[in-house]
Amino acid sequence: MGRVTERRKVIRIRDGAVSTRPDTLVAEEPLEIRLNGKPLAITMRTPGDDFALAAGFLVSEGVLGAADELQNIVYCAGATVDGSNTYNIVDVKTAPGVVIPDITLERNVYTTSSCGLCGKASLDAVRTTARWTIDDGDGTQGDGTHGDGAPPIRLEPELLASLPDRLRAAQRVFDRTGGLHAAALFSVDGELLDIREDVGRHNAVDKLVGRALQNGTLPLSRTVLLVSGRASFELAQKAVMAGIPVLAAVSAPSSLAVDLAAETGLTLVGFLRGASMNVYAGEHRIALRAAAAQS
Amino acid sequence: MGRVTERRKVIRIRDGAVSTRPDTLVAEEPLEIRLNGKPLAITMRTPGDDFALAAGFLVSEGVLGAADELQNIVYCAGATVDGSNTYNIVDVKTAPGVVIPDITLERNVYTTSSCGLCGKASLDAVRTTARWTIDDGDGTQGDGTHGDGAPPIRLEPELLASLPDRLRAAQRVFDRTGGLHAAALFSVDGELLDIREDVGRHNAVDKLVGRALQNGTLPLSRTVLLVSGRASFELAQKAVMAGIPVLAAVSAPSSLAVDLAAETGLTLVGFLRGASMNVYAGEHRIALRAAAAQS
Repeated sequence: MGRVTERRKVIRIRDGAVSTRPDTLVAEEPLEIRLNGKPLAITMRTPGDDFALAAGFLVSEGVLGAADELQNIVYCAGATVDGSNTYNIVDVKTAPGVVIPDITLERNVYTTSSCGLCGKASLDAVRTTARWTIDDGDGTQGDGTHGDGAPPIRLEPELLASLPDRLRAAQRVFDRTGGLHAAALFSVDGELLDIREDVGRHNAVDKLVGRALQNGTLPLSRTVLLVSGRASFELAQKAVMAGIPVLAAVSAPSSLAVDLAAETGLTLVGFLRGASMNVYAGEHRIALRAAAAQS
Repeated sequence: MGRVTERRKVIRIRDGAVSTRPDTLVAEEPLEIRLNGKPLAITMRTPGDDFALAAGFLVSEGVLGAADELQNIVYCAGATVDGSNTYNIVDVKTAPGVVIPDITLERNVYTTSSCGLCGKASLDAVRTTARWTIDDGDGTQGDGTHGDGAPPIRLEPELLASLPDRLRAAQRVFDRTGGLHAAALFSVDGELLDIREDVGRHNAVDKLVGRALQNGTLPLSRTVLLVSGRASFELAQKAVMAGIPVLAAVSAPSSLAVDLAAETGLTLVGFLRGASMNVYAGEHRIALRAAAAQS
């Protein structure tokens, strides 16, 4: 795309000294997401991976769950007076037979019709919309494996502690602009699977999830989602909707993110810094006894 | 409200040592904003100052501009099945005679009907919606004062450099949760006028602006808005819509925030840290020569 960053003149003041020089800024542009031709949402995003962003957004909203539900995604041409393409409007066409839920999006996600608007209603809306369950229990039932034969997830704290440095090492644009949020997807073995950067942290996660949909790897059932900032309800919701069992954040979670994690079985780690972290929910996926034994 | 923070159990891991203790989290709850009874938007916010948040949101969207345009704001009761009040739905009633623009909000802010969706369209939409001009020129015209007799704004870099520490000192909830964005309003003389914290940075600014509307102090023509994080288009838009001439951010601005500032005359300062800062637009309000003389 070539629009991930843009150059602008900046006046620098350093301890009283003034200089003028070009500066690299993170690019921000509006993106309108249409579903089968109907405008659905506008998000301010960093251009690039727009189709993945749109697809991931629709996974988060419960519209899409598998690659074969997606017919195609196109940039809408003719959006301007002169007919040129701004590359800021994408239309997502669903495959024949896909039933589109009756979505007025904000209400769909945050509320249900049977109750008032409150945190509980927001949790209910996610739970009833989610396609996959991420609560794999405590790993002690039966033969200790899940239905797919995979062993239960038990993450060593040392592995989690190593992820933020690897996220930062992989962040390509941040170093130049300081203006990007990053989201990275790791396997439960610590392998970096994908990383996306965006001016909006929710967009970075949608881009990750959208690429997984396109690649046919949803649900992301044996992965860790690491975000560079805080863990809000919205980010926890996106993890749950993509079937991601572990969300780790470098900074603080909100109360509603913790409540959603506790209700859906999501493991939520916050303040992941150096060898320190806080586990707010889903601690059965963290090897706590091993950690305690070292103390 | 008593809901700015909430307590949850957390498992702490510190260099291998595991302990369980209560933790204080920033509260996050949905707020539905209605305009004359009609649902308009839902935002995830930290409860408290909800009426100010709704009022400021409507200033940002160009619906409200003065206290006398506001009749009242109420919490909607009966939102739940049992008729109890969740305190998460507010209805803003405008005064008789106030003309409500035809708003489908996202399109209103980010686009205009005459052009496609692009950064330029987003800038145009703000410029055509704004009630006040914040471009007070370079202060050299006529007697060097504005129409209201006030002298042009010339901020010393040292004054700007002192603001982030004062913001942090005034942040009450952040220390306990680490999960809040802060926005503070200073006079151009450096006096702290107001500070708001919220899980969403846009909400913190809306709360500041809404209180100004309620107090009859719009436009905020001789103030500096300081935000604890980055400066996005959305935050620059909110500054412009409230008539705030200077926006300073501790971290990076986006390209579109800089473009909006340049187009509207907003002074935009980024990376405000210690004695260092970058001036991206509106440098006529910064006393650059004084700073250079010290180098």
